[in-house]
Amino acid sequence: MIGIFDSGIGGLTVVKEIKKVIPKASIIYFGDTARLPYGNKSPETIKKYSREIVEFLEKRGCGTIVIACNSASALAADWLRDKYPHLSIYDVVSSGAEAVAGVTKNKKVGIIGTTATINSGVYKKKIAELDSSIRVFTRACPLFVPLVEENWIKRPETKKIARTYLRPLKLQHIDTLLLGCTHYPLLEKVIGGVMGKRTKVIASGEKLTEKLHGSSASILEAELPLGDRKLAEELKKEYNYRGKEADKYFVSDLTEHFQNLAQKILNENIKIKKIVL
Amino acid sequence: MIGIFDSGIGGLTVVKEIKKVIPKASIIYFGDTARLPYGNKSPETIKKYSREIVEFLEKRGCGTIVIACNSASALAADWLRDKYPHLSIYDVVSSGAEAVAGVTKNKKVGIIGTTATINSGVYKKKIAELDSSIRVFTRACPLFVPLVEENWIKRPETKKIARTYLRPLKLQHIDTLLLGCTHYPLLEKVIGGVMGKRTKVIASGEKLTEKLHGSSASILEAELPLGDRKLAEELKKEYNYRGKEADKYFVSDLTEHFQNLAQKILNENIKIKKIVL
Repeated sequence: MIGIFDSGIGGLTVVKEIKKVIPKASIIYFGDTARLPYGNKSPETIKKYSREIVEFLEKRGCGTIVIACNSASALAADWLRDKYPHLSIYDVVSSGAEAVAGVTKNKKVGIIGTTATINSGVYKKKIAELDSSIRVFTRACPLFVPLVEENWIKRPETKKIARTYLRPLKLQHIDTLLLGCTHYPLLEKVIGGVMGKRTKVIASGEKLTEKLHGSSASILEAELPLGDRKLAEELKKEYNYRGKEADKYFVSDLTEHFQNLAQKILNENIKIKKIVL
Repeated sequence: MIGIFDSGIGGLTVVKEIKKVIPKASIIYFGDTARLPYGNKSPETIKKYSREIVEFLEKRGCGTIVIACNSASALAADWLRDKYPHLSIYDVVSSGAEAVAGVTKNKKVGIIGTTATINSGVYKKKIAELDSSIRVFTRACPLFVPLVEENWIKRPETKKIARTYLRPLKLQHIDTLLLGCTHYPLLEKVIGGVMGKRTKVIASGEKLTEKLHGSSASILEAELPLGDRKLAEELKKEYNYRGKEADKYFVSDLTEHFQNLAQKILNENIKIKKIVL
């Protein structure tokens, strides 16, 4: 059972990816829509919220937790791993840092994200641990989330704002730009257009699904008692018979806007339940 | 003791106004910065948060409550008055509706605010109660709050967005535009520039302070036992001696950004305390 959380609905893009790669996984999603956004809140508050959600997901049987929110990944992931060593905690910042470090050729990369993510300095730190010769240029882009929420994806206003935000990064001739926020992939075309063809634009969640796949595949195999073929077959039959558990979707506040957005992202009819932590 | 609350720091503009008009009032302010913004949340969640804050302020001795947040005023004010009939509850929507109804000459007014405020339809309802011949045109402007938070007050991007949002209202030839959100007065110049000189732009909080003044003055007088002049003088002396209680400022999440913004709005050095409700 994989628990995935985000401050809002944006993390469903990660869910979609996981469902594609690991169709057998049972997923519990939690979007903290009653308290979003996290990106302009303090580290203490982001840690507190993240912890409440992890405890909720653990109680529901999740042994694997995916933090799909960049702000929570940046401020709370390492802290949560210390607190819950028995859980496997994956986060989009670690996988994002690995992705850019693996892609850059001229060793100049850009990171954009919320104010909380950028101010945390965590991307710079994680990339330096992987390759200290990489120069990292960062920029907080707090208007990108509300622009996506307003669905102004293709508007000239959005393009103008993107140009303003990205100009300093472009002047540094970065060859890789990481979208350090789950909302930003929806602006990938605008951002790519501003940066030009020489800059590779990658989403922080891309690498994460791969990592998770490797690990979950082995978890699923481990569940079959190898060495006892018959029992394994039986178990496998039973597993197929029971099928996977139905995915569950929770939010802390439910508006029509979120319902529609969730449907649009997952492209399927899901039932979202509201729950107060 | 007057309790004032807002989803964030913006309500301090109302505090500033009150301090000017009723310098004797002791003020307790609460900004729900850990859960802001309210404008994109559901009516149930906005009511729940508002109720928690009113209970906090009442416990601290406030008999008068001012809701400085338009979304909370729109969704929770009448509901809170029913629930707490012993408290005097003032809200920016009621005073804003009175203000536009008193100002318009051509009986065509515009209201802008957050999605929650506009979708609630409360301005239309309150204005119709005052004068059913007034035609009310509304528009949600969800990007205005993040633009103010980003401090992009005078930027061309902001002007472009304002033009897009306000065009439909301008085409209706409204003569009065109400800024139905505590953040919007900071964009008054841009908004006024787009609307032109024929449209009067008014802030929802303007009328509120007047109303509160009338009532608080009589509350302060009532505290003096009229008829017993000597005792009254004594009490008054004591009142002067004790002076008013120091104003108190609370938030649910404290970042440097908020601290700076609060200082800027009030133009004085205040101590803000973080408290979890």
